[in-house]
Amino acid sequence: MSNLYNELTCLLEAASADVLELQRLHRRQPSSVTEDLVPGQRMIKTLLIGILCGAAALTIGILIGHFGITKSGSSAPPWLQDVAKDVDESLIETFLSEVNTLRIEENLRELTRVPHMATTAGDERTVQLMLKRWQDPETGLDRAWREEYLVYLSFPDPKKPNKVTVVGPSGDVLHAIREKEKPYTAEQEDPEVVQPYAAYSPAGHAKGKLVYANQGTPSDYERLNQTVDLAGTIAITRYGGAGRGAKAVNAAPYGVAGVLVYTDPRDINDGVTSDAGETYPHSWYLPPSGVERGSFNGQFGDLLTPYLAAKEDTYRIPAENVTGIPPIPIQPIGYEDAYVLICALDGDAAPQNWQGGFNCTYNLGPGFKPTSAFSASDVQMDIFNYEEKRNSSNVMGVIRGSVEPDRYVIYGNHRDSWVHGAIDPSSGTSVMLELSRVLGRLVKQGKWRPRRSIIFSSWGAEEFGLIGSAEYTEQYFTKLSERTVAYINVDIAVFGGATLSAAGMPSVQNVIFTAAKQVNRHKAPHAAAAEPLTFGLFAPQVAAPGRVSTSVYENWLRFSNRTSPALGLIPRLGHITGAGSDYAAFVHYLGITAMDFSHAYDRTKSSARTYPAYHTAYDTFDYASRFIDPGFLSHQAVARTAGNVLIRVADSLLLPLNCSDYAETLEQYLTTAESLYQEQLSAQKIPMEPLKRAVANFRSAASHLDRVIGASDLKNETPLKVRRINDQLMLLDRAFLNPLAFPEKYAYRHVIWASSSAGQPTFPGLADAYAQAESSGQSRDWERVHYQLSVLTQSIDGAAQTLVDVI
Amino acid sequence: MSNLYNELTCLLEAASADVLELQRLHRRQPSSVTEDLVPGQRMIKTLLIGILCGAAALTIGILIGHFGITKSGSSAPPWLQDVAKDVDESLIETFLSEVNTLRIEENLRELTRVPHMATTAGDERTVQLMLKRWQDPETGLDRAWREEYLVYLSFPDPKKPNKVTVVGPSGDVLHAIREKEKPYTAEQEDPEVVQPYAAYSPAGHAKGKLVYANQGTPSDYERLNQTVDLAGTIAITRYGGAGRGAKAVNAAPYGVAGVLVYTDPRDINDGVTSDAGETYPHSWYLPPSGVERGSFNGQFGDLLTPYLAAKEDTYRIPAENVTGIPPIPIQPIGYEDAYVLICALDGDAAPQNWQGGFNCTYNLGPGFKPTSAFSASDVQMDIFNYEEKRNSSNVMGVIRGSVEPDRYVIYGNHRDSWVHGAIDPSSGTSVMLELSRVLGRLVKQGKWRPRRSIIFSSWGAEEFGLIGSAEYTEQYFTKLSERTVAYINVDIAVFGGATLSAAGMPSVQNVIFTAAKQVNRHKAPHAAAAEPLTFGLFAPQVAAPGRVSTSVYENWLRFSNRTSPALGLIPRLGHITGAGSDYAAFVHYLGITAMDFSHAYDRTKSSARTYPAYHTAYDTFDYASRFIDPGFLSHQAVARTAGNVLIRVADSLLLPLNCSDYAETLEQYLTTAESLYQEQLSAQKIPMEPLKRAVANFRSAASHLDRVIGASDLKNETPLKVRRINDQLMLLDRAFLNPLAFPEKYAYRHVIWASSSAGQPTFPGLADAYAQAESSGQSRDWERVHYQLSVLTQSIDGAAQTLVDVI
Repeated sequence: MSNLYNELTCLLEAASADVLELQRLHRRQPSSVTEDLVPGQRMIKTLLIGILCGAAALTIGILIGHFGITKSGSSAPPWLQDVAKDVDESLIETFLSEVNTLRIEENLRELTRVPHMATTAGDERTVQLMLKRWQDPETGLDRAWREEYLVYLSFPDPKKPNKVTVVGPSGDVLHAIREKEKPYTAEQEDPEVVQPYAAYSPAGHAKGKLVYANQGTPSDYERLNQTVDLAGTIAITRYGGAGRGAKAVNAAPYGVAGVLVYTDPRDINDGVTSDAGETYPHSWYLPPSGVERGSFNGQFGDLLTPYLAAKEDTYRIPAENVTGIPPIPIQPIGYEDAYVLICALDGDAAPQNWQGGFNCTYNLGPGFKPTSAFSASDVQMDIFNYEEKRNSSNVMGVIRGSVEPDRYVIYGNHRDSWVHGAIDPSSGTSVMLELSRVLGRLVKQGKWRPRRSIIFSSWGAEEFGLIGSAEYTEQYFTKLSERTVAYINVDIAVFGGATLSAAGMPSVQNVIFTAAKQVNRHKAPHAAAAEPLTFGLFAPQVAAPGRVSTSVYENWLRFSNRTSPALGLIPRLGHITGAGSDYAAFVHYLGITAMDFSHAYDRTKSSARTYPAYHTAYDTFDYASRFIDPGFLSHQAVARTAGNVLIRVADSLLLPLNCSDYAETLEQYLTTAESLYQEQLSAQKIPMEPLKRAVANFRSAASHLDRVIGASDLKNETPLKVRRINDQLMLLDRAFLNPLAFPEKYAYRHVIWASSSAGQPTFPGLADAYAQAESSGQSRDWERVHYQLSVLTQSIDGAAQTLVDVI
Repeated sequence: MSNLYNELTCLLEAASADVLELQRLHRRQPSSVTEDLVPGQRMIKTLLIGILCGAAALTIGILIGHFGITKSGSSAPPWLQDVAKDVDESLIETFLSEVNTLRIEENLRELTRVPHMATTAGDERTVQLMLKRWQDPETGLDRAWREEYLVYLSFPDPKKPNKVTVVGPSGDVLHAIREKEKPYTAEQEDPEVVQPYAAYSPAGHAKGKLVYANQGTPSDYERLNQTVDLAGTIAITRYGGAGRGAKAVNAAPYGVAGVLVYTDPRDINDGVTSDAGETYPHSWYLPPSGVERGSFNGQFGDLLTPYLAAKEDTYRIPAENVTGIPPIPIQPIGYEDAYVLICALDGDAAPQNWQGGFNCTYNLGPGFKPTSAFSASDVQMDIFNYEEKRNSSNVMGVIRGSVEPDRYVIYGNHRDSWVHGAIDPSSGTSVMLELSRVLGRLVKQGKWRPRRSIIFSSWGAEEFGLIGSAEYTEQYFTKLSERTVAYINVDIAVFGGATLSAAGMPSVQNVIFTAAKQVNRHKAPHAAAAEPLTFGLFAPQVAAPGRVSTSVYENWLRFSNRTSPALGLIPRLGHITGAGSDYAAFVHYLGITAMDFSHAYDRTKSSARTYPAYHTAYDTFDYASRFIDPGFLSHQAVARTAGNVLIRVADSLLLPLNCSDYAETLEQYLTTAESLYQEQLSAQKIPMEPLKRAVANFRSAASHLDRVIGASDLKNETPLKVRRINDQLMLLDRAFLNPLAFPEKYAYRHVIWASSSAGQPTFPGLADAYAQAESSGQSRDWERVHYQLSVLTQSIDGAAQTLVDVI
């Protein structure tokens, strides 16, 4: 309106100026002469004035008519501008400038004051914190609330701690595994630090000769069983290679009585093992007594209520029917204790690739060397874990969309930790709180309201198996499936200071690149103070001479890249194929386009499986702020990038999802499948041509949709056309869902991104079925390959159908 | 525009009139005086004229400014009117007036010239006819095409007809069942008339003593087995009570060797049995040799490609893995032959409610009376059916929507028949062709284009198990799920002349009522010519004295009604709970709101299971036009009503779907469930409260949405708000889908409308689980009841969530 007013005023002024100029010209005539004018001249003068007045009146009339009166019937309705509004770049700049490292740091400090394992008092404290922040009248969201589920959890018994001992032939305890991690700061002494344990390991007592089973994979046990009779043994395994629970599940068929699992220093510490100056609190490395806790279940979501939200009265399967959890006791221990056990092992030396970071040969067992202090001794496990149904909360908060409130962009992270959880998950929660604060303030100030609705979620009980997010998707399945544009996950925001790391469906690649290019990297203010062994490893790369790294994008490109046929050298966006964090239910169960962001360390400089304090009592504010991200600039970079993406997905007129980038990935998967399987499939008379045609159809449909978009003037089109295209983009991943594709994999329905054990960068169902058929050679298994091909082909064809002209 | 122009002209004329009036007034002054005016007076005059001119100029300016200049930026875009357009009642009146009985009659004559069983030459002829009509440049659709599937069908061998004989002890054939129906018109002599057979009955030879097994339900065989040793017997059964194939499936566990099935005259002919003047061609009743053919499979869709579209290279399960089809030979026969067999049966008399329409006592067997001609004889079956994969076509045609082309209203019927199929399915196809002709012409003439897209579908191979529609929904699952507003099915358009009959989700009740009120009933022009025994039964009811039945609605209300708590006395809309026609995949597999229309006979005057010529060689044009609908007025009424609904669903600004009517049905189901199950469930400690809360939530959410709609000025709202509400209405039924709810029922996913064997008007999963638990008493079965309650509760709660405020 102000513009119109200005224009009108300006025109009126111009008209007045014309009149004044005429008056001025007129006045050039000497006044005396005027009085002497003959009546004819006076008439002309009057006429002239009349014409001028008439012209002025006409002009004023036109202006009033044009601007002053609202057109009835054909006038533009007030919502017209809103529905055509696109993302506001200046708003994004405002957002970027307001994301504050000190506030992130303060969030982290506040979130990590006490241990906050799911459903404990510490957890409730964080629930209250989230609610307080999201309900803040000045920086909160439109609305925030909690949602509770009654979920099946597993705990050690504080009154009867789990015990692992070496017991001599006469029954005397020769060695007892440490029950608590060694304290270096006050945090480890907090009575709320939970004893290291394997959640969902059964309680029980097991005693037997120790054997070393490497990573506890099926092939590891198969190999070990060739040398050692495993019946009645206790197997010690390294973390990695197989899922946690799988180490026990795989062992049971061989009659193994119990399993120990530890983190080998080679896998986590780059060989560093001494707490006399090397490990935390001197560096980011894991102290010898550190133990990785974890959930040892095999599927995500509440175990007693598969596919049903775990409400109070919901039907629950009998606990004995739960599958995928350890059938025998399993307990995690520190490498300090593992060292004592493994280096005393008798028997043949383990294969070379089973050897770890200890300065001794890893023997297979069974039992200890006669020369060792443990000669003729057994290992005894006394596990007192118990299961309990507990109320776990998600905290939800929303900003209502202005134009399309029925389109959701969901941003989430879990809230529960194993101990203080500074990195996992509070680094992500600190980022989420800062991001929601900046956006909430813009909303409360009336400066912004997103086009689409934004849902923030602080999930509960993730550590026990992504329970909060899984139950939420079960409860609101239809609503979320129909309306969710994208899910953005930031769990562990910062593993290290080297580079942004992102994963997601190929369609989100472009918007992530756009955002990452817009975020500048800053040098850490107190990086110089960090010790070389720790922060130095993960500090922002120094740019090559003559070239300054200015953006998150450029830095990412240097650390991890690939060559795209269409786009050339670009950063490598990871795929989301597993169930490592709360994106799992969104991707696999609902088929919602998803992204996961974090900041990574330089894997050329450290071979650690993850940041070393992962799931231990050392994952504290002190650890995070001194060794993972001093200055919180990596946190800030993640907040800015993920927030930038969030705003773009929420505000863009056209959804920033690119289906041609999806086509590229499908083509790459197809190429891999052809090179791996074509020959054998031809021999089996299983045609690959339908799959090839389907991928070609998808490419062609994606190109077509891109042309339609390119040829559209979206700001001036009917909003229903924009919505139509947006629906095509939003719903693309739904087309890849098939609830019957993977009957053996709980809640996995997405035929492109399902987990796979074949380890090939191609279609998971096909890869797994092929591996099985190739190994068994049975015709029934080759039929499964053909079946998986048909499922896949129909999904890709169906997806292509959603991208072509709608009718 | 013309209005604006008129207004402008009018204002200008008014302004001119003012000036002229002033001039007139001015002229009243005598001209002589004028010349004598002093200069001051002349100045006043000039000033007056100036003011007038100025005012005129200002007025003209205002007008030019207001109407003459397009507003830049804020002007109304050209699409604004289109997106706000609602259904045009005058268009509906045009449609209604153009639906022509003679054209419907002509369509039927053309469609039924030859038998057109799926994939035969006759079927191809109808494919070409559909394509020709839908591609007609003057009355066709925007586009029409065929889609082929390679489907698994079953046929009798024309070279080795199936034989059923009575074989004496010495091997001599004492009686042979008629292989073809008796010809009364030339149509029955067409060599393309397929021999009566049971599709998907295995080929094979069976011989044994005959027994009478009533309707072949599980309880029938159980009862019979108490009296007779069934091993090695041939069981003769009546149609009805159990699915066709089930009569053999249920028999096999008792060792029955083969099954015969026939249509008892009591069930189809109101006791009429003589073809000497009583049955067709003298009336609509079935002649003695008439045999009902049918598909004897247990699930819908192509049997070899469950959940996958049956394309050439699609994976097919081995034929021996097909479940639900007869494990032993089964063959349908006419009641003429059944009479000979049943009236000769030995053994105890069958229970009273097993007795049928023959003038003899139905005995159980085994074997024939010693006094009969068949004494000591066996019945022998020689079945030569074979299965074959054949190409079956759907014919598809579309009218592209103008405003929301990505919203589909699908109208369909199958094209294939068993023989000439005048009533089943060609009555429906004749209606569809007339309806699409009228709409197509309006489109081709540029007089109309629907807001949403309309898809017409002529399904193939329905008679073999709804195959064409099921494969279509499998192939386009995602696209159809996301975009289909409703599916309208008109299969058998006319069973008789009494009343409209309609079934569908409760949400369509209101639009059907609206349409039915708008369609007038006409008296048949040549009704007087019809014989009393036939048409008389099914003629439009004569109105009660003093009251004239004017609308399809009022007539329907008289024949079938119920009292709604909200609406009072209304016609009874049926539920779609089974898989009787092509709506099945849409309702049960995709959760799409669906309707089914037909015109029914008066069930108070005939107890026939269906129209008597159903699936026989007598279902011909002659039969249809003389006995089912002389004058084709019932066809017309169905075409007008279904077409009216189609236009309303396609054109309404707000979708005419009513969620509060859905709430009413859920409440009725709940009331039934409470009265039937509450007591026992309480005893089993299975809480019903969550279900009650869910139904209450649904009601409250539906009321809320209705209030939102009522408070909205939809024509002036942003089109995205209207779309949002429409999406809530369109997607409501999707919320009731759960692919895991009925693992034992192929493609049944809708938890409200799934088929049920419990026979209670309540939630099917709960009813069936309860019946099973009550019968077995096992705790595992009571757990299934609790599970089904939780599935149901979560679905209804989830549906309610989609109706409340979107965020």
